[in-house]
Amino acid sequence: MELFSKDFKAELSLRWQKIQRMLHQQGADACLISTNVNLLYTTGRIIMGYVYIPLSGEPLFFVRRPYGVIENDQVIAIRKLEQLPGLLMGLKMPLPRKLMLEGGEMTYTDWVRTAAVFPDADLLDGTHQIRQVRSVKTEYELNEVRESARLQALAFTKFPALYKTGMTDHEFSVEMEREMRLHGCLGVFRIFGSSMEAGMCSVMAGDNADAPSAYDFAMSGGGLHPSLPVSANGSKLENGMSVMVDFGSAFNAYISDMTRVFSIGKLTQKAYDAHQVSLEIQNMLMQKTVPGATCEDLYLASYQLAEKYGFADCFMGITQQAKFVGHGIGLALNELPVLCDSNKELIHANMVIALEPKFMIPSTGAVGSENTYIVHENGLEKITIATESIIDLTV
Amino acid sequence: MELFSKDFKAELSLRWQKIQRMLHQQGADACLISTNVNLLYTTGRIIMGYVYIPLSGEPLFFVRRPYGVIENDQVIAIRKLEQLPGLLMGLKMPLPRKLMLEGGEMTYTDWVRTAAVFPDADLLDGTHQIRQVRSVKTEYELNEVRESARLQALAFTKFPALYKTGMTDHEFSVEMEREMRLHGCLGVFRIFGSSMEAGMCSVMAGDNADAPSAYDFAMSGGGLHPSLPVSANGSKLENGMSVMVDFGSAFNAYISDMTRVFSIGKLTQKAYDAHQVSLEIQNMLMQKTVPGATCEDLYLASYQLAEKYGFADCFMGITQQAKFVGHGIGLALNELPVLCDSNKELIHANMVIALEPKFMIPSTGAVGSENTYIVHENGLEKITIATESIIDLTV
Repeated sequence: MELFSKDFKAELSLRWQKIQRMLHQQGADACLISTNVNLLYTTGRIIMGYVYIPLSGEPLFFVRRPYGVIENDQVIAIRKLEQLPGLLMGLKMPLPRKLMLEGGEMTYTDWVRTAAVFPDADLLDGTHQIRQVRSVKTEYELNEVRESARLQALAFTKFPALYKTGMTDHEFSVEMEREMRLHGCLGVFRIFGSSMEAGMCSVMAGDNADAPSAYDFAMSGGGLHPSLPVSANGSKLENGMSVMVDFGSAFNAYISDMTRVFSIGKLTQKAYDAHQVSLEIQNMLMQKTVPGATCEDLYLASYQLAEKYGFADCFMGITQQAKFVGHGIGLALNELPVLCDSNKELIHANMVIALEPKFMIPSTGAVGSENTYIVHENGLEKITIATESIIDLTV
Repeated sequence: MELFSKDFKAELSLRWQKIQRMLHQQGADACLISTNVNLLYTTGRIIMGYVYIPLSGEPLFFVRRPYGVIENDQVIAIRKLEQLPGLLMGLKMPLPRKLMLEGGEMTYTDWVRTAAVFPDADLLDGTHQIRQVRSVKTEYELNEVRESARLQALAFTKFPALYKTGMTDHEFSVEMEREMRLHGCLGVFRIFGSSMEAGMCSVMAGDNADAPSAYDFAMSGGGLHPSLPVSANGSKLENGMSVMVDFGSAFNAYISDMTRVFSIGKLTQKAYDAHQVSLEIQNMLMQKTVPGATCEDLYLASYQLAEKYGFADCFMGITQQAKFVGHGIGLALNELPVLCDSNKELIHANMVIALEPKFMIPSTGAVGSENTYIVHENGLEKITIATESIIDLTV
């Protein structure tokens, strides 16, 4: 088995070079990648091992598992981390003096172990910088996320037919998960942040949408069990309820994010009105989200539009309101940037961003839609193309 | 919302006392729990926040999310970690001098942040010690895992009818996942180790069972995509193949583990013979796995039985053979102890252990079974009760 194909190496080289430019800016002379999301970013696959990226030249790939990956000048089979300095010296590579690690992704134990292996190196936490590198996608990555979004939207078209009268939110969720999986969804979603956990989709019917989250989610449901307080809570779907379905894609390494709302019969006019405001906020953001815009301004413009229509008090939840309207996405569900209050980070071309203005309507449930977009010079390209009106499941 | 009910507090007290005894042994005067698996262990639910367990007396619960958890002398709403010293002092609690943290579960960044919050405390990594505490279950926990296993075995009885001629391993997997979810499986499995990832089940048909894992799994399949190299690889299920299904339960907070093998038509005699050896190894281990036995001895006894029947070369895989036969299980899929070569840890009563002697038969696939057991004074109690013979899906 080869670690990566010759054709794919050109793509990976773009990523390595972006990391090397960042290392230069940070004054580091190498980084050692050891966590799954960044191993995937730098090799295109999951391995158990380490990618050593020097400031210049090609990376070295130290692979513990899988056993049997081809060995060459760049790919070196290892048993343990402690072999690295000897192997680097054997290749006449200088040992790093300022080494970047992923302190926000790796455990404390792994950091300490690495520090002992490179006792003469200053260690530098590059978690945020590597996430910034990943937030601006290559053309290849954009096409992967477009394909993931295309399959996601295709699976979505099958969802309404899965509803049967008398179902619970959980049963409806299970049928949608199955449909996603049959379309090729891998079923596991990487999330940044050690306290984050999520299943394949969050399905929230009625007031469950306002259950305050134990995670860093805005409106994600209370769950079936206190050990996983997210998504459906087992409620029967009843007349007058909105059923919000927030689901990731992951038909390849890349995730797109999408939310749509179903109804059981008719909703109140207020719910339809608030839903329309969500669509209007997204239309506004499609124009305003251009390179150079700040995350904070985009959030505030969204909030102001919600306020203008009288929905500020239920924007992004009621009981636990999130001051947030969207997030970057890619290899993880929650990438940079975060479109939230007080975040002065800038938007860049080729970022991939999910925008999810949502509203909580008590006794009805959540309304609003979420789409994934690619940032271009003149605005956003929507890649989750599917009807955004509220679909009545009983019709 | 209450953090936990009065009835459940007696159960949690048992766990807090076990941790306090361990703190005493380790010379620590408190531990600060911050990672999901241990928050779940010490509160019975997922919160975003911290559980502060002093050497004696009741723990304090500092809750960031969900918003609206009841506040009392023990439950304190916080916005950030940095408030803790002030809040402890306000409660006339001494600040810890030797504070245990979960260095093998939390990120380096979180450890450093905690160190800055408690600058006068010596920090101690208690990951392994807390996992040891968790490895011996309370009666309540044993009943939870029994119930999870009961539902798992019940869902399993529906699996054979889900097979249709011409299916791929992936399609079969999706139907089994759906069945599990409809029986109430929560669908997300906690795993120890930052490089570990898994979906709801590993389905391996034919030679895919021997794909060398990029994870710390013995025989788990190559997967649909290099970004998640585990389980089904999309192969069509064909005559003469074994289809191994290794699936977790998680119908509540607790996981049991179970593997069964299906066949498409008849397998070779060698496959049936090896399968029988797996059952014989488990019968042997049911007697030998008693308090005081060492993990290493149990692995070696298993290996020797495999060797006696001439199956040593394909025991636990061929391409990437694991020197391992089982593992503890509970709130995480892989708990202590690990029944592997060179592990001198002792078995204790009330541990929950999954035993999975498996064999790889080239051109056929994997055979063997896996069950979850509770350790009693006189041997093991099997809790995953379902037929263990190879079920021909075409009959």
